[in-house]
Amino acid sequence: MTTKKVYLFPEGTKEKKFLLGGKGANLAEMTNAGLPVPPGFTITTSACLDYYKDGEILSGELMKQVHTSLQQLEEQTGKQFGNIANPLLVSVRSGSVFSMPGMMDTILNLGLNDKTVVGLAELTSNPRFAYDSYRRFIQMFSNVVLGIDHYFFEEIIDELKEKNGVSEDTALSAEDWQSVIKKYLVLVEQKTKFPFPQDPKVQLSQAIEAVFRSWNNARAKIYRKINKIPDDLGTAVNIQLMVFGNLGNDSGTGVAFTRNPSTGQNELYGEFLINAQGEDVVAGVRTPNPISDLESQMPAIHSQFVDLSNLLEEHYGDMQDIEFTVERGNLYILQTRSGKRTAQAAVKIAVDLVEEGKITKEEALLRIDPDQMDQMLHPRIDPNVELQVIAKGLPASPGAASGQITFDADEAERLAEKGQKVILVRPETTPEDIHGILAAQGILTSRGGMTSHAAVVARGMGKACICGCEQLKIDLRAGIVQVGATTLKQGDHITIDGSSGHVILGTVPLIDPHLSAEFEQLLLWADDVRKIQVRANADNPKDAKKARVFGAEGIGLCRTEHMFMEPSRVPIVQQMILAENDEEQKTALAQLLPMQKEDFKGIFASMDGLPVNIRLLDPPLHEFLPNMEELIVELTKMKMQQTDSTSYLVKEALLKKVRALHEFNPMLGHRGCRLGMTNPEIYEMQVEALFQAVVESKLAGIDVTPEVMIPLVGHVQELKALRRMVIAVADRIQEETGTHFEYTIGTMIEVPRAALTAEEIAEQADFFSFGTNDLTQTTFGFSRDDAEGKFLHTYVEQKVLPDNPFIVLDQEGVGSLVKMAVRAGREKKPGLKTGVCGEHGGEKSSIQFFHDVGIDYVSCSPFRVPIARLAAAHAELNNSVKKN
Amino acid sequence: MTTKKVYLFPEGTKEKKFLLGGKGANLAEMTNAGLPVPPGFTITTSACLDYYKDGEILSGELMKQVHTSLQQLEEQTGKQFGNIANPLLVSVRSGSVFSMPGMMDTILNLGLNDKTVVGLAELTSNPRFAYDSYRRFIQMFSNVVLGIDHYFFEEIIDELKEKNGVSEDTALSAEDWQSVIKKYLVLVEQKTKFPFPQDPKVQLSQAIEAVFRSWNNARAKIYRKINKIPDDLGTAVNIQLMVFGNLGNDSGTGVAFTRNPSTGQNELYGEFLINAQGEDVVAGVRTPNPISDLESQMPAIHSQFVDLSNLLEEHYGDMQDIEFTVERGNLYILQTRSGKRTAQAAVKIAVDLVEEGKITKEEALLRIDPDQMDQMLHPRIDPNVELQVIAKGLPASPGAASGQITFDADEAERLAEKGQKVILVRPETTPEDIHGILAAQGILTSRGGMTSHAAVVARGMGKACICGCEQLKIDLRAGIVQVGATTLKQGDHITIDGSSGHVILGTVPLIDPHLSAEFEQLLLWADDVRKIQVRANADNPKDAKKARVFGAEGIGLCRTEHMFMEPSRVPIVQQMILAENDEEQKTALAQLLPMQKEDFKGIFASMDGLPVNIRLLDPPLHEFLPNMEELIVELTKMKMQQTDSTSYLVKEALLKKVRALHEFNPMLGHRGCRLGMTNPEIYEMQVEALFQAVVESKLAGIDVTPEVMIPLVGHVQELKALRRMVIAVADRIQEETGTHFEYTIGTMIEVPRAALTAEEIAEQADFFSFGTNDLTQTTFGFSRDDAEGKFLHTYVEQKVLPDNPFIVLDQEGVGSLVKMAVRAGREKKPGLKTGVCGEHGGEKSSIQFFHDVGIDYVSCSPFRVPIARLAAAHAELNNSVKKN
Repeated sequence: MTTKKVYLFPEGTKEKKFLLGGKGANLAEMTNAGLPVPPGFTITTSACLDYYKDGEILSGELMKQVHTSLQQLEEQTGKQFGNIANPLLVSVRSGSVFSMPGMMDTILNLGLNDKTVVGLAELTSNPRFAYDSYRRFIQMFSNVVLGIDHYFFEEIIDELKEKNGVSEDTALSAEDWQSVIKKYLVLVEQKTKFPFPQDPKVQLSQAIEAVFRSWNNARAKIYRKINKIPDDLGTAVNIQLMVFGNLGNDSGTGVAFTRNPSTGQNELYGEFLINAQGEDVVAGVRTPNPISDLESQMPAIHSQFVDLSNLLEEHYGDMQDIEFTVERGNLYILQTRSGKRTAQAAVKIAVDLVEEGKITKEEALLRIDPDQMDQMLHPRIDPNVELQVIAKGLPASPGAASGQITFDADEAERLAEKGQKVILVRPETTPEDIHGILAAQGILTSRGGMTSHAAVVARGMGKACICGCEQLKIDLRAGIVQVGATTLKQGDHITIDGSSGHVILGTVPLIDPHLSAEFEQLLLWADDVRKIQVRANADNPKDAKKARVFGAEGIGLCRTEHMFMEPSRVPIVQQMILAENDEEQKTALAQLLPMQKEDFKGIFASMDGLPVNIRLLDPPLHEFLPNMEELIVELTKMKMQQTDSTSYLVKEALLKKVRALHEFNPMLGHRGCRLGMTNPEIYEMQVEALFQAVVESKLAGIDVTPEVMIPLVGHVQELKALRRMVIAVADRIQEETGTHFEYTIGTMIEVPRAALTAEEIAEQADFFSFGTNDLTQTTFGFSRDDAEGKFLHTYVEQKVLPDNPFIVLDQEGVGSLVKMAVRAGREKKPGLKTGVCGEHGGEKSSIQFFHDVGIDYVSCSPFRVPIARLAAAHAELNNSVKKN
Repeated sequence: MTTKKVYLFPEGTKEKKFLLGGKGANLAEMTNAGLPVPPGFTITTSACLDYYKDGEILSGELMKQVHTSLQQLEEQTGKQFGNIANPLLVSVRSGSVFSMPGMMDTILNLGLNDKTVVGLAELTSNPRFAYDSYRRFIQMFSNVVLGIDHYFFEEIIDELKEKNGVSEDTALSAEDWQSVIKKYLVLVEQKTKFPFPQDPKVQLSQAIEAVFRSWNNARAKIYRKINKIPDDLGTAVNIQLMVFGNLGNDSGTGVAFTRNPSTGQNELYGEFLINAQGEDVVAGVRTPNPISDLESQMPAIHSQFVDLSNLLEEHYGDMQDIEFTVERGNLYILQTRSGKRTAQAAVKIAVDLVEEGKITKEEALLRIDPDQMDQMLHPRIDPNVELQVIAKGLPASPGAASGQITFDADEAERLAEKGQKVILVRPETTPEDIHGILAAQGILTSRGGMTSHAAVVARGMGKACICGCEQLKIDLRAGIVQVGATTLKQGDHITIDGSSGHVILGTVPLIDPHLSAEFEQLLLWADDVRKIQVRANADNPKDAKKARVFGAEGIGLCRTEHMFMEPSRVPIVQQMILAENDEEQKTALAQLLPMQKEDFKGIFASMDGLPVNIRLLDPPLHEFLPNMEELIVELTKMKMQQTDSTSYLVKEALLKKVRALHEFNPMLGHRGCRLGMTNPEIYEMQVEALFQAVVESKLAGIDVTPEVMIPLVGHVQELKALRRMVIAVADRIQEETGTHFEYTIGTMIEVPRAALTAEEIAEQADFFSFGTNDLTQTTFGFSRDDAEGKFLHTYVEQKVLPDNPFIVLDQEGVGSLVKMAVRAGREKKPGLKTGVCGEHGGEKSSIQFFHDVGIDYVSCSPFRVPIARLAAAHAELNNSVKKN
C-alpha cells in the first residue's frame, strides 16, 4: 500500500497536527472553514522521516505525489510552473509540530526564473517589482538551499549603490536590479560550480530537501534539546500559491481588524490599497484608504470580506487581525490571528462576544489578562486631548505623570521638597539616584530595558516609568536633552505615559481611572466564579469609599499609623514619645484618642455592613521624630554660631532622645507588637478608641464588624498577652456603655517564626493575615528599601530570581511558609480565617497561589481590587480546567 | 496485721522514699552507710494519709509505735524526755516525697520546758544559750503548731531591747531571756486559752499533728498544683536527737569539705570550734580553728572524721560538704551534701575521683556543667593578688575588667574613643546607654537582676557585668558613688569580677585563661565520647593557634572581612570601593590580593592538617567607609568656615558616595553573596588569593584542606553562579601553577529561604554551615543590635521568651529551620556535611540540639572550644542515658 505523503489543504484537518505540522494543520483548518486561503499542499512529517531513513534521498514515490498535487494546483489556479504568460509562483515553508524558530526560513516566489520574471513584469506592469522579486528569490534560495552567505549578495548591491551614488535600495531601478541579477547568477555558479536552477520543478525539489535537512541543522538540534522536543518528529513542508495585489485595479491588499482594537466597537477597522503589495502598505510610500472605502470601490469584495470576518470571529471566537490580498477580483486571506487590542477594547470585546452568544462568560473571563487591566486603573492621559508625542520608549511601569525635567537626583529631591513635580530624566539610573526616584513623579531613561534599575525600582514604587527611550540624546553636562529637532532643558515640562511608552511635550491633563460598564459586567461575572474574597487596604474614609466602588468586600488592612502622620497630629505624637513622665504621656494620649475614634467611625461608616480589619501601630516610634541627620547639622551650626545655650540645650536633649530611639535596622527593630509589649499605653489607647468608635457607630445604626489585628507577632506569648489586653478593654467598654458588640482578634503572619509556630499561635488567633511584604523581607533577608535600589534589578536581569519577589510572590520560599502556616493553623483551629494583606494580594500569579492553598481573602490597594477580582476568578477557572 | 507506721533510721532504706519521704530515706541511707547520724525515727507518709482518712485524728496505734520508737531512742542515747539531768531533745521536721518548700518548717529543741531548760543550762554551763534555745523553741512551736504569729513574740523582744537601750539580740543576757520566756508563756495562754504544753510527749504529738496538717495548708496545695505533685502522697515526719557541741571541751562543732573547694586539692578543708554550737561558727563571735588543728586537739575524733569523709566520698562519689558536731567525745554527722566548688576545683575533683577509681569517666564528664567552665575561660583576676573587695553584687556576666568609673554613657564613649578604659557605673541602664555599654570594659549597676537590661546586653556583648549591687549609693548629680565608708568619684579606678560579683578597689592585674592539666584530661575524655566535632571561629593566625591549643579540630569560620579592617589596609579598601573606573578598582584589588594571600597562608600554617573554612566577604561595603554622620558634621563646619572649595568639593563627593551606599537596614542589605553577584571582582580577588595561598602552602609542605564558603545565599541560583566562579578560578590556578589541590565549596544557611529550599541548594553545596546568629535575626525579625538594647530584656524578664535567643538557640522556631534544612539537604545529598558557626555553637543546650539533629560540627570562638567539647560529650551521654 502506498502511504499518502502529500495533502492538499482541503484534505487536512486541524487534528492531523503531528502529520502536517502546526502550520499545515492550520492552513487546512482555514481552508475547510471556507476561507479563501491561497491554495497549496503539505508534505507530511513522515515523509521527512523517510527521507532520513532512506539515507537523505527524496523518494520517487514522494516526488510523484508532489507532482500530482502540483498539477492539481496548476489546474485549480490556471497557472503553470514555468509559464511565462501566467507563471505559477509558490512559497515554501517548513512546518514542524511544535514551533521551532531554529529551522529554515520561508522561500517566497519560487517558480521565478529568467523567463517567468519577464511574465511577472508584464502581469504587474511593474518591472521594478518583478526584478526585485526575482533577485530576492535568488538570494533567499541561494542562502537557504545552496548555503551561500548573504554577505556576498549584499556586497554586490552595495557596490552598485556606491557606483550610482545612492544609499537606499528604493533608489535602484528595474534596470539596476537586472544588472544585480546577472551578477547574482555568476556568483552562484562560481560558488556551486552549477548554474542557478532555472527549472521550477528542480527549484521545488531542492527546496523540499533543504527543509528536510533543516530539521537536523545545529540550531534546530540545540533548540529541541533545550525545549525537550523529541528528535523523531520530523518536519512538514508547506507549498502555497503566491498571490499578488498589484496585478491591476481589480487587485489590492489590506489589513483589517474585525472590531476596533482601540475601543472594542463592533466595526471593521483597518486600511487597504488598490493595486499594491503588502509591502507598499508598510513602506508608507502611498497613503492607504480606510477599510470603509472598500464598500464603494470593490462592493463585491467588501461584502465577501464582511461575511468572512463574521465567519472568522465565529470560528475562532475572538476578534481577528486579518491580512488579505485581492488578485484580479479574487479575495485571498493570507493570515488571520487574534488581534492585539487595548485593555479597554479587550474588555468590551469579551463582554460583547458573550452577549452575541459567541463565547461563554468563563471564556470571556479567561480572555482578559488581569495584568493588562492595570493600565486602566492608573491615572491616564485624557484621551480627548491632542498630544504632542516627541518620542517613544519601553513602557516600563504603567501610569502617566507630568513634571519638569530634572537631570539630577539631588536636584529632584530638592525641588520635590519645595512641592514641585519633577520627571527624573537620566541615561540610566543607579543606586545613587534612589532618593531622586523617590522624589520624582516619573522616571525617563534613554538606556536600559524592562528589567533595568529604573524599571524595577519604579514598578516597585508604583511610579510611571519609560526606559530605553533611545531617541533621547541626553547631555548631562549641558543640562539638555535632544529629541530629534527639539531641545529641552532642565525645568521644561513633559508628560510620560508609562503604559504606552510615549513621551509628550508639556503638561497634559490626567484623568482618574473609572470602570466602564463592560468592565463592571465582567467583574460581576468574575464575582460569581471566584472562591477567594477580595478586600482593600485603606487607611481613611476616602480610600475606603473608593475601594467599595471598586468592589472591595471589606477592609483587609487599615494601618493606624497613617492616622498618626497627619501634620496636625505629629506634634502630639511627638509629645507622647518624648514625654518625661507618665503624666505628660497620658495627656498626649488623651488628645490622640478622640482623633483616632473619629478616624475609625469614618471608616466604619463607609464600610457599613462589611468587615474592617484594623492593625495596631506598627512602625518604630522614631519614624515620628525629627530626622536625626538634620538635627545634627542644625546643632553643629548652632554650636559654631554660639547660639544661646538654652535653645541649644533643648535641641541637644531632643537629639539625645532621637539618638536613643535610633535603630540600626528599623525593619527588624522595636516596632509592631514589640512596641505594644514595652509601651502598652499606646495600644491600649488605640483599642479604646476603636471600641468606643464601634459603640458610637452601632448607636448611629451602622453595621460594624471590627477585626483587631496585632502586627509582627513572632511568639505566641506576644499574642497571648496582647489578646488579653484587647479583651480587657472591650469588656470594660461594653460594661461602661452597656452596649454589646462582636469583634475578633488576630495576628499578622509576617516573620518566619510566626509561620513556623503557626499551630501554637492559632490557639490565640481568630484569624491570620499574611503580611507577605515583610515576610518576603525576612524570608529572603532582603530589605526592600535597599534591595530594590541596590541589587534586585541585577538579580532579575541575570535571572537569578525569576521576578521581583516583592511584586510576584516567591512561592517556593515565602509561599512554603504561607502554606505551612495555613495548614498548621487549621489543624489546630479548623476553619481558621486566613487572608493576605501584602502587595501580592493584587498580583495574579500570587492570587492563584493563595487560592490554591485555601486562603479566604486577599486585600490590596483600592485600585488593584478589580484586578484581584478578575485574577481570583481566573484562579478558580484555571483549577477547573486542570481538574477536567 | 498491724502496719508498720514508724521506722527507726536503721530500719529504712533509700528505696523506701515514697514511704519515708525524701529526707527520711536519706537519713536512713546515711545511718546504714555507717555514719554517726544523730539517731531518730521517721513516721511514714501512709500514717499521714491514715490521719486524714480517720478524720484528722492521730490513731492510738500510731502513737503506740511512736512511743516504742521514742523509748528505743531514749535507751540508745541514755537521755530521757523530761529528764532534767540529761534531757532528750529532738528536732521535728516534715519530709515529703518530693521537696516541698510550701510546708512546715523545722521545730528544734522539742523536749525543752521550764524544768529541762535548767538542766540544759547546767549541762552546757551556758545559761544564756539554754534560755535563748527555750524561748526560740516556744516561739517556733507556737507559730508552727499553735498558729500564733511571730509578730507578737518579736514585739516582746523589741520592748525589752528598747527598755535596755540595746539594739542587738546578742546584747540580751540569760536573765533577759528568762523574762522574755515568762512573757512568751503568758502570751501563749492568752492566745490559746491553754498553758504552753510542758509535757514533751504532748509537745511531740502536737508537733506530729502539725506536720500532718501542713500537708494540706494553702501554700502546700498551690505548690503541688503548680508543680503537678499528686495530692495523695502525704508527708512523713522525722524525729531526730538534738546534739550539742557546747557541752564542754570534749565537745565542738565544725564544717568541712572533703577536698579543697577552691583548688580541688585532696585535703580536708574547713574549720571547727571547741565547745561551741554551729551558730557560734556562723556568728563570728569566736574565730574558728582550721580543720587541720583537729588532729592535735582531738586526735581520735580527727582520725574518725578522716575515715568518715573517705567513706562519704566513696558512698556519694563526690566531694562532700559536711556539718558535724562532737558531743562529749561522740562525733555526729548532721548533714552531708555535695560541696559547692569553683570551676577549677570541680574539674580537678572530677578527674581525681576517676583516677582514684571512685567514679567513671562518663560520670566525671556529666559532673561538670559546661556553663561553669565559662569562668575559667575569661580573663580573670590574678589569684595571687590581694584584693580590696568593697562590695558584692549579682555576677551577671562573667570575666573581669578594670577601668575608671564613669557615670554617663556619652562620657564613657568619649573616653573610650581616647583609648581609656572605663567601667560604666549606673543605677540601672536603659536603651539610651547602649553606646556607653559598647564603649565600656564592664558595667556595674546598683539595681536590677540577672535579666535586667544591663545584664542581658552585657552577656550578649560578652562584657563583664555586675548587677543589683545594692551596697552602692550612686549620686549621679554629684558624680560620686558611696560604698560603706568609701566614696569614689568619676575617674577613680575599680575592677569588677563578673564571675563572682566582687567590686574591687583599684586596677588589678588580670590573667589570661589557660587549661589546667586536669581540664585537659577531662576534655580528652570528652573527645572520646562526643560524636559532634568542634571547630573554632578564627580570622587570623593568632586566634587560630589559640583555638588549636584549646582543641579545635579546624576552623569553622574565617571571616575574611576582618582582614580588610586592619588600619593599614582600610585606605586601600576605600580606594577599591570609591574607584571611579575599572582601572582604579583593579589597582586597589591588586594591592589587596597579596595581603589576603599572606593572611591565608598564616592561617593554613597554624591549622596544618586540619580543615579551614573561609567565608568570602560578608558585610556591606559602607562599613569600610567613613561614618556618614561625622562627614555631615565636618561638611557643615567647612561650609560655615568657608573652607576653600576644592577640599570642600572632595569631601562633598565622598559624602555623596557614602550616602549612595548608605542602607536603611544594612543587616538585610547589599552584603554577602549579593555583593559577590554585583561586584564579582572582589570575590574573584579573594578566591584567587585563597587558592594561591593553598598552592604556596602546599609547596611549603603544609597539609591544607580549604573550604570555600559563600555567605547569605537565599536562592540556589546565587550559589550556582558563585560556585561556577570559584571553580573557574581554581581551575585556572591549578593550570597556571601545575599544582593540584582539593577544595570544597559550600554555603551558609542564614536566611530562612535557604533553609526552606535546602534541597535545591544542596545540589550546589558540598556543605551547609548554619549561621544561627543571622538566622535568628531573620526568623524572629529581630535586629540583634536593636533588640538587645530595646526590648529583648523586657521579653526575657516577662518570660515572653524563655531565653535570649541570640545566646540560647530557639529550638522551636530557628531550630525547626535547621532541622528542616539538614533533613532536606541530606535527602538530596546523603552525607552532606553540616556545621554551625553562630554563637550558639558554643552553648550547651544548643549543642545538645545540634547533636540531636545530626549536625557534624559546631564552631565557636576559641575560648569556648573547651566548653563546646564538654557540652558535645554531654549531648552524647545524655542521649545514652535517655536510651537506657
